[in-house]
Amino acid sequence: MIPNINRRIVLAQRPQGRPTPADFRLEEVACPQHPGPGELLLETLWLSLDPYMRGRMSEGPSYAEPVALGETMCGGTVCRVLASRADGFEVGDRVLAMTGWQTHAVAPANAVRRLDPDDPHPSWALGVLGMPGLTAYVGLLDIGQPQAGETLVVAAATGPVGATVGQIARLKGCRVVGIAGGLEKCALAVDELGFDVCLDHHQDDLYAQLKAATPDGIDVYFENVGGHVLEAVIPRLNTHARVPVCGVVAWYNLTAPPPGPNQLAALMRSVLVNRVTLQGFIIGEHLHRQREFHTDMRAWLAEGRIHYREDVVVGLAAAPGAFMGLLRGDNLGKLVVKVAD
Amino acid sequence: MIPNINRRIVLAQRPQGRPTPADFRLEEVACPQHPGPGELLLETLWLSLDPYMRGRMSEGPSYAEPVALGETMCGGTVCRVLASRADGFEVGDRVLAMTGWQTHAVAPANAVRRLDPDDPHPSWALGVLGMPGLTAYVGLLDIGQPQAGETLVVAAATGPVGATVGQIARLKGCRVVGIAGGLEKCALAVDELGFDVCLDHHQDDLYAQLKAATPDGIDVYFENVGGHVLEAVIPRLNTHARVPVCGVVAWYNLTAPPPGPNQLAALMRSVLVNRVTLQGFIIGEHLHRQREFHTDMRAWLAEGRIHYREDVVVGLAAAPGAFMGLLRGDNLGKLVVKVAD
Repeated sequence: MIPNINRRIVLAQRPQGRPTPADFRLEEVACPQHPGPGELLLETLWLSLDPYMRGRMSEGPSYAEPVALGETMCGGTVCRVLASRADGFEVGDRVLAMTGWQTHAVAPANAVRRLDPDDPHPSWALGVLGMPGLTAYVGLLDIGQPQAGETLVVAAATGPVGATVGQIARLKGCRVVGIAGGLEKCALAVDELGFDVCLDHHQDDLYAQLKAATPDGIDVYFENVGGHVLEAVIPRLNTHARVPVCGVVAWYNLTAPPPGPNQLAALMRSVLVNRVTLQGFIIGEHLHRQREFHTDMRAWLAEGRIHYREDVVVGLAAAPGAFMGLLRGDNLGKLVVKVAD
Repeated sequence: MIPNINRRIVLAQRPQGRPTPADFRLEEVACPQHPGPGELLLETLWLSLDPYMRGRMSEGPSYAEPVALGETMCGGTVCRVLASRADGFEVGDRVLAMTGWQTHAVAPANAVRRLDPDDPHPSWALGVLGMPGLTAYVGLLDIGQPQAGETLVVAAATGPVGATVGQIARLKGCRVVGIAGGLEKCALAVDELGFDVCLDHHQDDLYAQLKAATPDGIDVYFENVGGHVLEAVIPRLNTHARVPVCGVVAWYNLTAPPPGPNQLAALMRSVLVNRVTLQGFIIGEHLHRQREFHTDMRAWLAEGRIHYREDVVVGLAAAPGAFMGLLRGDNLGKLVVKVAD
């Protein structure tokens, strides 16, 4: 059934620092009724919320265009096809799309991917089997190149990227030290995800704890947070350490450089003395790894060697609040919005 | 003729920050008279002074052992053989050695390399044809991977590494922007070395000048200084920029982290957004490139495509003062000490 109304959340204004409710606006607009040739009319079932969206809310150079003011917030979605004018797609099919924070949208069929209709967890295509999972896989294996017996450190240890990085590193024979916000997350990382240790970055003595947890130093630091976690990691980096840089969420809300001391010297001296490699990457440049990733990840999930947890909020209207919480670290597991049944 | 006295300069105390004359001590000790089996007795002709020596004066983890207190300062030398008990070496041969800041030494023959007796510039084995030249060659070509039409930035533009980096990059078709201390060095970089532009880092508006000099951004930043030069470079880095990290001489005398703001966030955000690769390296791990380096560099020098300049000080006793000047950037060209004729 095609409704008359499309509900969507648009960027109302650009955030200054931390996003606030006033930065978002929920609108009701006419729902498109008829896809054009080669297009699909889609109903959103699941919306993914991810830290990278903070970058799209700001102007200024980045690896992707910012969301324009008044435009629908961007985001990955799992949708149901309500009408199709594209070969190979039928009403009722489920697809992975990038239709953003709205209940309905028209999309070209070549911008979506058809999902297995029998998949019991379609929303996983937004997480462990989707962009965050591929980010972990490529960043860890291709850039981090972990070897058995090495020590890996990853923060946001219960988030979809961090949790996957840590679990794959365990499969590769690494000692895995997670860092997360709060004791509940740390317990989850150890008990459910199999990390060797997980440290609470809210503790004052993070550096002392990290030193004790990495007696042989750090060979791979998967960087997704920056901030004081990175500063604690720098003195522990080993000779020939690798640092895939996937995100620096602690700094996404900065409006000016943080106060000193200036830790740039400490990083650069370690890069030099230890012959460290730091490498930034974005997943869109590594899509050729998708097929191997899917094969490996489906096997690991089926064998129970990778565990995956979602944090589900219900209803499109909850998205702004949930997203603000994500930037504070409130979520436990991959944050997704259940938009429709 | 074998003298009775060996004059040497030892590390008298570890510097706090900038080295001072009191950190060094000139001693006269008995000169060894007879090399053992497989050894050579050497007379120093030329001593190389290089920034890395500052690191060896301090304790603490680095890629090489520190010089012990009371021990002869380390360093590359060109020597004459005064006595030989090693096959293939005769009295009067010239060799490249690592005998440090002293007039005479005994060294095992397998720790030296015989130099061409007809070479009109034996001291060049300490510079453009030696460790600094190989550092430039490997760091630029293997790690920096410059492509024709790209923009390269290198500081210490008239030093042996920077000058070689810039000239090789020109040969590879890059736009080359140097940074140096003072107008005399800048003029030399442009007029003699063929850099496209050279900026004086003593100017207050370095960032504005760098921005104007790099209208297409920076593709390769060969890092040998750190400090405010690096901070000016960060906002100009292009997508997929490469940053070989060979030294951070601006920070070698630090006794505490510099004051804020903390520029770590700026660097890491650029690494992420622009997918930058930073890679530290030390030349000892790239010696397999030595043969190709020598072939290429000898050809470039013979064809006049690479220019090389030395800053010669005379007499071993001048070494501490010259070294302190090196860390201030007083030298113009590769700093070498002429120890004997």
